[in-house]
Amino acid sequence: MSAVVHDQAAPSALDLRERYGEVRAFTEYLAAPLSAEDQTVQSMPDVSPTKWHRAHTSWFFETFLLQAYLPGYRPFHRDYGFLFNSYYEAVGPRYTRSQRGCVSRPGTGEIAAYRHHVDEHMARLLTRDLDDRISYLVDLGLHHEQQHQELLLMDIKHVLSMSPLDPPYAYPRRPAKPAPRTQAAVSWTRCDGGVVAVGHSRPGFSFDNEGPRHEVLLQPFGLADRLVTCGEWLEFIDDGGYRTAGLWLSDGWAAVNEGGWDAPLYWRCDDDAWTVFTLHGRRPVDPAEPVCHVSYYEADAFATWARARLPTEFEWEVTAAGQPVNGQLSGRDYVHPRPQPAPSFYGEAWAWTASAYLPYPGFRPATGAVGEYNGKFMVNQHVLRGGCCATPPGHIRGTYRNFFPPAVRWPFTGVRLAKDI
Amino acid sequence: MSAVVHDQAAPSALDLRERYGEVRAFTEYLAAPLSAEDQTVQSMPDVSPTKWHRAHTSWFFETFLLQAYLPGYRPFHRDYGFLFNSYYEAVGPRYTRSQRGCVSRPGTGEIAAYRHHVDEHMARLLTRDLDDRISYLVDLGLHHEQQHQELLLMDIKHVLSMSPLDPPYAYPRRPAKPAPRTQAAVSWTRCDGGVVAVGHSRPGFSFDNEGPRHEVLLQPFGLADRLVTCGEWLEFIDDGGYRTAGLWLSDGWAAVNEGGWDAPLYWRCDDDAWTVFTLHGRRPVDPAEPVCHVSYYEADAFATWARARLPTEFEWEVTAAGQPVNGQLSGRDYVHPRPQPAPSFYGEAWAWTASAYLPYPGFRPATGAVGEYNGKFMVNQHVLRGGCCATPPGHIRGTYRNFFPPAVRWPFTGVRLAKDI
Amino acid sequence: MSAVVHDQAAPSALDLRERYGEVRAFTEYLAAPLSAEDQTVQSMPDVSPTKWHRAHTSWFFETFLLQAYLPGYRPFHRDYGFLFNSYYEAVGPRYTRSQRGCVSRPGTGEIAAYRHHVDEHMARLLTRDLDDRISYLVDLGLHHEQQHQELLLMDIKHVLSMSPLDPPYAYPRRPAKPAPRTQAAVSWTRCDGGVVAVGHSRPGFSFDNEGPRHEVLLQPFGLADRLVTCGEWLEFIDDGGYRTAGLWLSDGWAAVNEGGWDAPLYWRCDDDAWTVFTLHGRRPVDPAEPVCHVSYYEADAFATWARARLPTEFEWEVTAAGQPVNGQLSGRDYVHPRPQPAPSFYGEAWAWTASAYLPYPGFRPATGAVGEYNGKFMVNQHVLRGGCCATPPGHIRGTYRNFFPPAVRWPFTGVRLAKDI
Amino acid sequence: MSAVVHDQAAPSALDLRERYGEVRAFTEYLAAPLSAEDQTVQSMPDVSPTKWHRAHTSWFFETFLLQAYLPGYRPFHRDYGFLFNSYYEAVGPRYTRSQRGCVSRPGTGEIAAYRHHVDEHMARLLTRDLDDRISYLVDLGLHHEQQHQELLLMDIKHVLSMSPLDPPYAYPRRPAKPAPRTQAAVSWTRCDGGVVAVGHSRPGFSFDNEGPRHEVLLQPFGLADRLVTCGEWLEFIDDGGYRTAGLWLSDGWAAVNEGGWDAPLYWRCDDDAWTVFTLHGRRPVDPAEPVCHVSYYEADAFATWARARLPTEFEWEVTAAGQPVNGQLSGRDYVHPRPQPAPSFYGEAWAWTASAYLPYPGFRPATGAVGEYNGKFMVNQHVLRGGCCATPPGHIRGTYRNFFPPAVRWPFTGVRLAKDI
Repeated sequence: MSAVVHDQAAPSALDLRERYGEVRAFTEYLAAPLSAEDQTVQSMPDVSPTKWHRAHTSWFFETFLLQAYLPGYRPFHRDYGFLFNSYYEAVGPRYTRSQRGCVSRPGTGEIAAYRHHVDEHMARLLTRDLDDRISYLVDLGLHHEQQHQELLLMDIKHVLSMSPLDPPYAYPRRPAKPAPRTQAAVSWTRCDGGVVAVGHSRPGFSFDNEGPRHEVLLQPFGLADRLVTCGEWLEFIDDGGYRTAGLWLSDGWAAVNEGGWDAPLYWRCDDDAWTVFTLHGRRPVDPAEPVCHVSYYEADAFATWARARLPTEFEWEVTAAGQPVNGQLSGRDYVHPRPQPAPSFYGEAWAWTASAYLPYPGFRPATGAVGEYNGKFMVNQHVLRGGCCATPPGHIRGTYRNFFPPAVRWPFTGVRLAKDI
Repeated sequence: MSAVVHDQAAPSALDLRERYGEVRAFTEYLAAPLSAEDQTVQSMPDVSPTKWHRAHTSWFFETFLLQAYLPGYRPFHRDYGFLFNSYYEAVGPRYTRSQRGCVSRPGTGEIAAYRHHVDEHMARLLTRDLDDRISYLVDLGLHHEQQHQELLLMDIKHVLSMSPLDPPYAYPRRPAKPAPRTQAAVSWTRCDGGVVAVGHSRPGFSFDNEGPRHEVLLQPFGLADRLVTCGEWLEFIDDGGYRTAGLWLSDGWAAVNEGGWDAPLYWRCDDDAWTVFTLHGRRPVDPAEPVCHVSYYEADAFATWARARLPTEFEWEVTAAGQPVNGQLSGRDYVHPRPQPAPSFYGEAWAWTASAYLPYPGFRPATGAVGEYNGKFMVNQHVLRGGCCATPPGHIRGTYRNFFPPAVRWPFTGVRLAKDI
Repeated sequence: MSAVVHDQAAPSALDLRERYGEVRAFTEYLAAPLSAEDQTVQSMPDVSPTKWHRAHTSWFFETFLLQAYLPGYRPFHRDYGFLFNSYYEAVGPRYTRSQRGCVSRPGTGEIAAYRHHVDEHMARLLTRDLDDRISYLVDLGLHHEQQHQELLLMDIKHVLSMSPLDPPYAYPRRPAKPAPRTQAAVSWTRCDGGVVAVGHSRPGFSFDNEGPRHEVLLQPFGLADRLVTCGEWLEFIDDGGYRTAGLWLSDGWAAVNEGGWDAPLYWRCDDDAWTVFTLHGRRPVDPAEPVCHVSYYEADAFATWARARLPTEFEWEVTAAGQPVNGQLSGRDYVHPRPQPAPSFYGEAWAWTASAYLPYPGFRPATGAVGEYNGKFMVNQHVLRGGCCATPPGHIRGTYRNFFPPAVRWPFTGVRLAKDI
Repeated sequence: MSAVVHDQAAPSALDLRERYGEVRAFTEYLAAPLSAEDQTVQSMPDVSPTKWHRAHTSWFFETFLLQAYLPGYRPFHRDYGFLFNSYYEAVGPRYTRSQRGCVSRPGTGEIAAYRHHVDEHMARLLTRDLDDRISYLVDLGLHHEQQHQELLLMDIKHVLSMSPLDPPYAYPRRPAKPAPRTQAAVSWTRCDGGVVAVGHSRPGFSFDNEGPRHEVLLQPFGLADRLVTCGEWLEFIDDGGYRTAGLWLSDGWAAVNEGGWDAPLYWRCDDDAWTVFTLHGRRPVDPAEPVCHVSYYEADAFATWARARLPTEFEWEVTAAGQPVNGQLSGRDYVHPRPQPAPSFYGEAWAWTASAYLPYPGFRPATGAVGEYNGKFMVNQHVLRGGCCATPPGHIRGTYRNFFPPAVRWPFTGVRLAKDI
């Protein structure tokens, strides 16, 4: 995180207190439907147990705020720093990531106590006059926790999918709005290109990887006004998309063959009928919904098949800049992509972009542990834009750069097409 | 399991009812100190979650008794047959063994209900007149469940050891009896060899692999009257045992180097002081206790270092034949090897033998699913004898053949020496 | 390969005949010092045996020229299409890449005969009037063979390095020119940035991935006028570069720890003295030489340590555009980086760039098998620029885009720094 | 190797000189048809390159004879001790076994020179008066080289099988004797059991693992008077043998599924016709030949299917004791199992036994490096008896114990049935 972030307008202490309470409570709200067993499982190395998310987000506040700025603060437990550090080398050694699911103790009870302990002490810290650095770190901690709220949902979806019982995370408490059963054809939002400015301009919070704001040169292009749907994906499948080497990147074709991929993750075909496992149980694939849980490789192959291409992250950003955030983000009742009104540039499913995740010109990771937040991951990943149905409201913005390796499928990842014009 | 077992004296229905209740209750007693989180974790592929053990032992009764012999019985859940079949190919496909820890649902609550459901229906079955086949299968199911009681303890020990908190499974509820701090030197129980009979002779229950009873020819030998102690093992370590290739089998030396072994599993050296993780927490290594959690490779290397050898399974059996079962088996209060009175041939820790696990002359695995119980594992394993501190009382006997691959260390495995005389 | 390449000026048949002879002969010249044993070994999956390179380059002409355009041509051997296809899915199945070193037959003798057979028939084809498509494909085949000449050298270096005998590929037949033992400090060639054109503009041969030519917007920058030297790398090592997590990308730090990296590939430290294995045997590290055989991760960490950064591929291209190709490329006598005159932008060692290997705007891979040449590798790799001491003269140019995954170290890969100004 | 071997009658120096020349020459005879490329390849970790076998057998004489007993002897090359030590920990470190195929230099020429150098110096040693220890070690070295002659053939068969060209090692120089196209039904050689003596009794050479001679108690049994044939194996295949879990050991069934086994190694089914790759090229499966290249798992499953069992090693030894060595061993013209006259107990294919490879009562591996020859492999393997078509004549005997892990298929391994009577 660059030192330059300090010149942003600091949130007021009052505002931070309120938001602290809300954000922390929303994590607990998301974990509430989950049993102790659910919260313990790590279904693959990429996934973390729910109770680990709950603890790690608390560790972030304990480590970077309470230990640093609350005089006399004593850590809740001497082993938690080791257990709940995710990847901060500067903070010290940590428990092997791939074995987080081997730790039964501390259990959910101890972790609830840990959260409570951190919250109580954070309340004390937040009553004080906060300088910009502290305000910034609290703000960062809240955005960090929101990211883990999304991770918690995508991780628990993978965990639950391992059971042959197809258990739902939650039943919809109110019915989803009736949606169009077919989706309108794509319209292309056109842009003439030229020199345009991208990246975050303060004030307002942003992660360090969103800046510095700078100019790039774009060629004329069109961007689809909605995501690719399941119906379109079924056409791709039916046309032999997963069996046609010529559509795929070489690494993608290897992944198809090694993984035995023949559809998005969580899809299954029984007796010629496709169903999909969702956080609300298994149900028929809805052709009108945006497709979700596809890798970059699949997104790219689909685009090739569709005689289009994936957009760059800047094509997306420039187009979305003037658009409302009208899509579905993480709500309290329903966590699955819904058919989109058009045009819609946010929500439902993250859009893979053709852009590798690299630093913007002038980017410098900060010295200090929080400098490890983003910069050290800038290789072997692609940028995704726009948020998804598991992104907390208020967390997404036009300059937000999410990133994943090209083979992953367990996040809520979808496809938005672009084309040259 | 051979058809020949039918000629054993069948236990009475009354006896079976009583024992059914006791054995099933003891499983729940063992699981009682464990949280839902503890019961969910699978810390390595060899380990099964506690809740899986509780369910699988119920599945055994449901599959081989209730579905076969209780008219009108309907399975508790259509997916449990898939989830809780361990390895019976004849019964159908099953959930991947190494991913048992990925299944959060059914949780401990559903599994308690499953056990209750099975118990209720078994009670109905056990009120009826039982033919020999049914009696035999109930008896088998109870011995099967006792085996899983031991597995449950060795598995949960491994699970708990993964936490840096060194959490105890249970605190001793009454203090262990004061034990001698040093152990008397070994005495050798001598046998002149010759043609002797080994294997199980009915009546009484035995597993199919314990028979047929047959004669073998032994050379004269001496068998140590107690297990190797931790104090003796410390001498082996101090003498460079783990760094001297010449003491080791070739596969053993590879295991030492790949695994970085320098002491038994669960031992750790901090500031020159050895401690050991036990089911009652971490504590100093006690030189008087039998050493435990060593592989066959380590047992063999130790024997070579001690200018002795491991006994064959028949040397053990012939010597133990006339001896009382005076060692510590699984009790209600304490699960860790205790210093032994001498002579003592049972309990504390299983003794690795030099005998590969192979069928006795005339052994035939039965047709039918329960025939998969033992016979199909008769390769790549060694026989262990004598039971351990986690073996349920009444479960061990002089002909009992336990077996494990030579590299494992998570069972309660120890060493008893033999020598030629 | 895009159809658009056809509008380039086609080389004359006379010119092609002559160049065909020269290029094919140079491959044999490079293989001449190698024994049949040398030519058979595959020392890791990335490496191909020399005899495979000799055969595969012939297969390219046989498949795309002789079988397609020489009437009545019959393949040399029915199994060679399977054995020597590298990765062209459209052409058919192929031998497992990682097992190329398991094939002893055909041997070097059969492969010499294969090359002769292809050359004889190519001579017939090249006497005819060639249309643009054929001329283009011959030209492509020659550039393809030149790429394999470089691969042959980097691969055989890895093969020879596996022998404890440190065998040289070739003894220098004439002594290397005396070189400065210390290297002048870096000067920075400055560029004001702005909108600039990059990519290949015809006429003249280029690979499809070098176009279309297009405009990009650059920020002001400075580019080092020489590569990083071994002397500078020794400072990085001495300063703990390989032990300082904060300098590394996360994937890079994992590679350091998994691979036990503490210096560039082929370096070894005995009694505090660093030596390096070269194609001319093992010898002391020369501080004045450009450093070579470092991964992208190491290049990036070094740049961070040096308070600089890696250039983008366009920063390199714009700077090198007006510069002479004055560095050392692959000659007949010496294959190792030499100390550079300054400024020097070509030769010695490929410069890793910060640019991910991605398509240029408007790039479309062609339909047909040769369309698999470049486009399908455009993910998970970084661009390298400038050629190296193993690049055939005439093969490099300012728009040339080489590419490798970030973890590789066996190519002749080095580092050129850039900085913001 | 036990000290007790010294009391055997030492071979005379004259006899040893002659045999030394013959054995060493036969190795070169076997390698003669192989190109430098053939001799370099290691097709899997278990396989060693031919040139490695040629060098390692020379290293044995150089290390244990010339360096130990020929005053003033200087090793041929300072790196060969490292390169050509197989597994003798006591002699020092060695090159990674699985990478023997990565070493192109020294090549076949240098290794021929190495053999010549060793032979010249051995000739000097063998002109002297030899004490028993030296005579014993020379004798051991010759038997060691004979073992590698067999390994050389089974290894090169695997190497050649990797090429889609199905290249023959050698064309039969004279036609195989016409053989019966069908094989007579098995007869069972009966034995009443009882206490019998097994193991080697001197004089005459034996490996340490063949002793001490001792008594064992056998039950009555019958042993098949010939090996299982390919025709019988085809019945097993046609009856679904490879698809019937109930026939297999658990580890065997896992191997079937992981390896995709559906026939012996080297068999292939094209258009319903089975062919087999042999050292003389690919050809139709001959139903009358003994089946070869099956694992212990397959042998055991076949025996179960045939309602028989595998013999113990002692059942084989007692039966074969009075029988002539009338089968085909390694000759100069043909290396493949031939249909057997009955009864026949030696040659064609090694017979898997039900006996795990364990020490005989009283076995002690010697101190010193040659003590690593056999004893340290006594775990995780099964004993095979009787020799095969690649065993040098004079090398096999009734007490000879060969051993392999149960999953291997590349040796010349077959099946002989036994049954209880």
